[in-house]
Amino acid sequence: MNHDPRFGCIGIFDSGFGGLTVMRAIRELMPYENMIYFGDTARLPYGGKSSETILRYSLENAALLISQGIKALVIACNTSCSAALEQVRAASEIPVIGITEQGVEEVLRLFPNGKVAILGTRATITSGVFQHQIMSRTTSLELYSISCPLFVPLVEEGYIEHPMSALIVQEYLRPLKNRGINGLLLGCTHYPLLQSIIQNELGPEVQLIDPSIACAEKTRASLAEKNLLNPSTHLPHYQFFVSDDPEKFRLLGKTFLNYPIEHVQQKRAEQFKTPLLN
Amino acid sequence: MNHDPRFGCIGIFDSGFGGLTVMRAIRELMPYENMIYFGDTARLPYGGKSSETILRYSLENAALLISQGIKALVIACNTSCSAALEQVRAASEIPVIGITEQGVEEVLRLFPNGKVAILGTRATITSGVFQHQIMSRTTSLELYSISCPLFVPLVEEGYIEHPMSALIVQEYLRPLKNRGINGLLLGCTHYPLLQSIIQNELGPEVQLIDPSIACAEKTRASLAEKNLLNPSTHLPHYQFFVSDDPEKFRLLGKTFLNYPIEHVQQKRAEQFKTPLLN
Repeated sequence: MNHDPRFGCIGIFDSGFGGLTVMRAIRELMPYENMIYFGDTARLPYGGKSSETILRYSLENAALLISQGIKALVIACNTSCSAALEQVRAASEIPVIGITEQGVEEVLRLFPNGKVAILGTRATITSGVFQHQIMSRTTSLELYSISCPLFVPLVEEGYIEHPMSALIVQEYLRPLKNRGINGLLLGCTHYPLLQSIIQNELGPEVQLIDPSIACAEKTRASLAEKNLLNPSTHLPHYQFFVSDDPEKFRLLGKTFLNYPIEHVQQKRAEQFKTPLLN
Repeated sequence: MNHDPRFGCIGIFDSGFGGLTVMRAIRELMPYENMIYFGDTARLPYGGKSSETILRYSLENAALLISQGIKALVIACNTSCSAALEQVRAASEIPVIGITEQGVEEVLRLFPNGKVAILGTRATITSGVFQHQIMSRTTSLELYSISCPLFVPLVEEGYIEHPMSALIVQEYLRPLKNRGINGLLLGCTHYPLLQSIIQNELGPEVQLIDPSIACAEKTRASLAEKNLLNPSTHLPHYQFFVSDDPEKFRLLGKTFLNYPIEHVQQKRAEQFKTPLLN
């Protein structure tokens, strides 16, 4: 039984809590899949750091999860995808699913024409990853992109309900006022946690795009293609690793995951150098 | 000449840019001292992380600077002081000056009686380091303490001039309105960069306390006591190390330091394990 690769875990990483929104979508779509989540809480946030540093962190995080024998890897962090998706994929023998690609697919599927805004961290927006991938496939979309460097600190510091969050959302979205945008891509896995504030600010006519459901569907398709879907109907096993305080993650994380988090272990990602880093 | 320890460097570390305000004060007081600055920009911010992680980072940063043969060490980060000052001092043979102790001295000197507010990161305020040290020496001071977790991201993201900074400052200082406070301690080395916004919000009757000048004076006294003051009157040599992008640091840092920053080298603090970490 243990050697059947279908019973293996899906590995998911993010800089902190945000990727739990992706884990939640995967759990809702595939309730019997085992999963391991890694949140690099000792080194977050990634969004303002250099692409070289984000690449190193992402390769270490991937190596940590791969050392656990995962059957597929989900990069649930758009900043990591923008700096490291190709490199992680090139160095991995398992399927690697990046949240960013699913965001691009969703934008193209929902708004083949129209005006779409992309919100992301400074590193993601500066990298141009969304803009390049979308514009290389269509010329009939009008794109706006806005980097929102304070959104991750807001979420990671637990300020979602605080009046400051509304003020900061208002300030970042000001350039979108009266632009007649149709859709807005939440281009960072922390941003769905600010979804209702963003929706309030933009009004109901703007459709928000959370790529986590598409990412879950892509993960299922990738597993199915390799005959790696778990046939079990038993309660799955979830493991959580973080690089900083496990208790803080356990307490805050269950809200993001919408599911209890029991055991969280601390692991330092920089100790995982192989096989992805030389 | 090279072996005369008086020509050695003062080492200074912080999680990022904030400690440059302390380096600036040291430079203004002792314009001929050589200095090495380390900003741990790949792992910032420290303020929301656990005391265990901040201790490890601080010991690594100290080991990095000590490996360069410094003659004194200034911990220009209140969060590091709150979690690691005693441990770094116990493990070091050179004088170790902590910004936090100088903040405490300034509060006691300026406001032996009165109402004083302390602003700091979540880790610093939660540690109670300021509150304990002040209250153990006086009972005639009324203290308020407020953690301001978004101030460091505001400064590190370059938002000082942005209207959001005023909104966020206003929100954090709201509990101090109509309290009749006399003084406010800037209990994080990033906060002097928000000084004019904070002063505007509180009005001219509240005296802001930036402990960097006291920290520079304490550094001079510690060097004088060991006969380690540099007798030279030549332009000093400054070295800058950061753990993330050197160019971003060079460009942003000169504003904080009020002096040109020429060469910045990248160094990864986690590679420095000895002699402070076992």
